[in-house]
Amino acid sequence: MTQTRTRLSVDERRAQLLKLGKDLFGDKTYDDLSIDEIARAAGISKGLLYHYFPSKREFYVETIRAAAEELMVLTTPAEDVASGDRLRVSLTGYINYVDENALAYATLLRSGVGADAEVSRIVEASRLAFVNRLLTGLQLDEPDPALRATLRGWVGFVEGASLDWIDHRDFDRDTLLNLLVTALTAVVAAAHAPRG
Amino acid sequence: MTQTRTRLSVDERRAQLLKLGKDLFGDKTYDDLSIDEIARAAGISKGLLYHYFPSKREFYVETIRAAAEELMVLTTPAEDVASGDRLRVSLTGYINYVDENALAYATLLRSGVGADAEVSRIVEASRLAFVNRLLTGLQLDEPDPALRATLRGWVGFVEGASLDWIDHRDFDRDTLLNLLVTALTAVVAAAHAPRG
Repeated sequence: MTQTRTRLSVDERRAQLLKLGKDLFGDKTYDDLSIDEIARAAGISKGLLYHYFPSKREFYVETIRAAAEELMVLTTPAEDVASGDRLRVSLTGYINYVDENALAYATLLRSGVGADAEVSRIVEASRLAFVNRLLTGLQLDEPDPALRATLRGWVGFVEGASLDWIDHRDFDRDTLLNLLVTALTAVVAAAHAPRG
Repeated sequence: MTQTRTRLSVDERRAQLLKLGKDLFGDKTYDDLSIDEIARAAGISKGLLYHYFPSKREFYVETIRAAAEELMVLTTPAEDVASGDRLRVSLTGYINYVDENALAYATLLRSGVGADAEVSRIVEASRLAFVNRLLTGLQLDEPDPALRATLRGWVGFVEGASLDWIDHRDFDRDTLLNLLVTALTAVVAAAHAPRG
């Protein structure tokens, strides 16, 4: 056991621990996961874990950084991919990542370190209320799954565009309003269009 | 002072404190804001604050709940608004809210209770990298603000639709991929269309 361990380089061991961290933090919140559990799951001593990461917080932050880097690599098409294919190739990488790391992805985007589950529930319930209201507006109480995902996506669009507006304040409110309205019309029409 | 205070009903005082909480938590993170500061900002004693909210966490959660309810009220059009106008009226309420509560809105959506600023920065940098890559793909290094906001919105769309997919898993990966691609095409086209 010890021998196998020493054969791993420092970088390999770090990478291995960060991969493990992604799964562990996907499963439990930051507060609920103890250093003891992390060390046990890794099959190493707490002392050795601290050798690689001086604190639980540092381990968590590095886990997120490694996940962000992994996502960036997975969504970067090879140089020789034709420009017309690059978006699909990149998004396929993104979806693969989401698929394989569903728990970690959801945990990170819904909350973050030390996040409060109750707060996340309130925010998510508020988003769903928007989606449901849109469905009522569209007179669609039982949408097909792709339309439901499109509306949930549009709520994300509203939030992303609103955050951009707050950050820059370089266009007026009417432009933002029109942008949100036309985006909804456009994505709903796209969700109904035949796919290929 | 004490007399004014006692004239407020319990509900009024609670509502007043929650309004204050929205501003305070927009300005500082959960960990950085102490109960002492909250009481000082409210001009009441810590004991009285605890009378309304037994803990800082409870005060924070109730602040979020009140903000979500306020947003819901602001985005609900009056009954007599014609169906063709309801979306714009509702989104105007949303934008008003974002405008008037920019700090709190950004803090909540970027992080959450006890959230780690470093983690938020990593996640946000990763989103911006996506937007920049899209801009390069579109051969637009200096997009106009509305297009930039549209692309940032689309990243939110990707996240929202991906979270919906993880939650339901009731359509296949190709459907998700097509949904994301067609949404991008649609919103970019919409951002370029004349507004009215």
